[in-house]
This record gives sequence, structure tokens and C-alpha cells, in this order.
Amino acid sequence: MATASEPKESPSNNPGLQSEPDEATKGYFLQQTMFRVKDPKVSLDFYSRVLGMSLLKSLDFPEMKFSLYFLGYENPASAPADPIQRTVWTFGQKATLELTHNWGTENDPDFKGYHNGNSEPRGFGHIGITVDDTYKACKRFEHLGVEFVKKPDDGKMKGIAFIKDPDGYWIEIFDLKTIGNVAAAAS
Amino acid sequence: MATASEPKESPSNNPGLQSEPDEATKGYFLQQTMFRVKDPKVSLDFYSRVLGMSLLKSLDFPEMKFSLYFLGYENPASAPADPIQRTVWTFGQKATLELTHNWGTENDPDFKGYHNGNSEPRGFGHIGITVDDTYKACKRFEHLGVEFVKKPDDGKMKGIAFIKDPDGYWIEIFDLKTIGNVAAAAS
Repeated sequence: MATASEPKESPSNNPGLQSEPDEATKGYFLQQTMFRVKDPKVSLDFYSRVLGMSLLKSLDFPEMKFSLYFLGYENPASAPADPIQRTVWTFGQKATLELTHNWGTENDPDFKGYHNGNSEPRGFGHIGITVDDTYKACKRFEHLGVEFVKKPDDGKMKGIAFIKDPDGYWIEIFDLKTIGNVAAAAS
Repeated sequence: MATASEPKESPSNNPGLQSEPDEATKGYFLQQTMFRVKDPKVSLDFYSRVLGMSLLKSLDFPEMKFSLYFLGYENPASAPADPIQRTVWTFGQKATLELTHNWGTENDPDFKGYHNGNSEPRGFGHIGITVDDTYKACKRFEHLGVEFVKKPDDGKMKGIAFIKDPDGYWIEIFDLKTIGNVAAAAS
């Protein structure tokens, strides 16, 4: 059992966990999460209008026929004007979303869509966004016609929600006022 | 074409993109990326020892037979001692990785492993970590026996690498010294 001096998260309570990060990893940070999207027009609308993200950087690779869109909550007004410096700036931001668009999927009647990882074969689950107020945010999402996997009062875990992005990827929605209670039974 | 006054990333160059985030989304941030792992012992070792992450919070849900492990680059020494406050603190951090362990997979001979999204059916692609020096980092990863999808000098895009975590999920590795050049052709 965890004690006050040895929290549940200590290495002694978690086989495999190292106590101190290797000096060599100093400065590392989780910069991006990438998934593929069918139509950037639809995704850019969703992530900017519904979730309030900005387009930090876009990159086109004509030879390989794909484009990348980096989205995040940084203010793009603070980005350098020079395109290459803007790339460097973008990769220097924590917690961005990278959307990959393979050209043509948006117009391809045979394109079956992407797999969100929550049905077989499973793997990836979701991204999660901390909001100011889950109920207020979800009311707005409902008003905007967003599809829900779980509304905040559905199921056991009151106060957290799951919505779907236009490709069907899951996005968890929670706030810091309620998350402590939601997870209290498990904490 | 983008002009100096109108960068490639401006709404006018990107159908669907909103020019200003809605006031209602103020304070939102991308907090987590979740995927499922077979064996937390193996994953905690990899993400802490190889990638230098710390365990910010763990949550067990005995009734539903799963546990969550939140990893990130914050210093857990700055986390509150109280378990519930530690949950709130964790969900207040940007860019964490949430590993879900469905109990029993680590010992189940019939468990086929999780799907990383980069073969059919595709969807999720990777997470990406900004490091100090890609070549130096990859030398260390090689030394530690990490599996590579792409070494930094493989293929066209010199200076970026892809490694695999223990479940086969892809992790992109790049640094701010070279990323500008890597993406220059596309920027």
C-alpha cells in the first residue's frame, strides 16, 4: 500500500518505473500527436471553430501527396513570419495536434474513413482537452451539433464527456473543478 | 499563394479555418493522449528509463479492471501529496501521455497486442518528442536496444527518426536545430 512518504506513484510501487530521469533526456517534451484526417477543410473548421485551436503551421509535400496541419492553443500572432522559423517555433511548442491529409481522400467515394482505435483492432484511444467548465463546454458543443460518445451525465463518471471529431476520433472533455471527484474513487 | 502579409497558415489560405478562437474556448489546452498498453511494467520502464518521463498519476478502477498511468515531463516532486489534489494537478498539465492497462493482457497468451494505426485500418499515427539532438538521442536509443522504424539518416528526411514503444506505437524524434531544414522543402 502507498504511504504518505511513498505515494502510489513512487517507483517502489510501480515495477519498471525509474526513479530519476536520465540526464540525457533533459529538455525532452511531448510535442505532438498525429492522426490522419479525410478532409482538412472539415477538420480545420472543427478544431478552430469548435475547440478554439489555431493553425500553427502547415506543410505540403507535393511529391508524396500529403499535407500536415499543426494545431494548438498557442497564439499564431507570436509566430515568426519567416516560414522556416515558423516551423522551428511550432516544433518548440508543447501539446500540438498534427493532422495528416493524404491528398484525394476528401473526394474519393471509395475512401472508407479512418479508424479511431476504439473498436477492434484497438490501440489509440483519444486525446483529452482541459476546459474551464465541462457542462458549459458541452452545452456549447451540443448547440454546435457536435457528436457525443458520452455526455457529462451519462454513465458512472459524471462530469467528464467524450465527443467525436469529424473523422470519429474521440476527444475527452474535463475540467479541473470536477476531475478530482470523478477520479476520487480510483485515486 | 501566401504573401508576406498573409502567411500560408492564415484563414484566407485555409478553407474552414476560423480567424479568431471563440471566447468560450479560452483557457482550453491539449492535456493528454491516450493509448492502451499490454504491460505497464514494460511501458513504465520504457517511458521513464528511455524517454525520461515521470509517472505523474496513476488511477486504478478495480470494478472495471483497468488502470491509468499518466506520464509526462513535469517534475512529480512538485505534485501535491494529497491523492485527489495530485489528480487535479495532473489534469492541469499540458502534454501528458495516458496509458490504459486493461488488467490481464500482460499474462494472456491469447492477447494479440494492440494496433498502432499505421497499417490497415489506419488512423492514429504517432506521438512526437522534441529532443536536444536527434542524432545523439538516437545513438542512446540504439544503445538501449530501442526498435527503430526510421533512423535519422534513413530515407529523404534526414534528421528525424521514428522509434517504437514496447506495444509498437510510433514515436517521432526531432530537434529544433534540424527540423527547420527537414521541413524547408515543404514550408
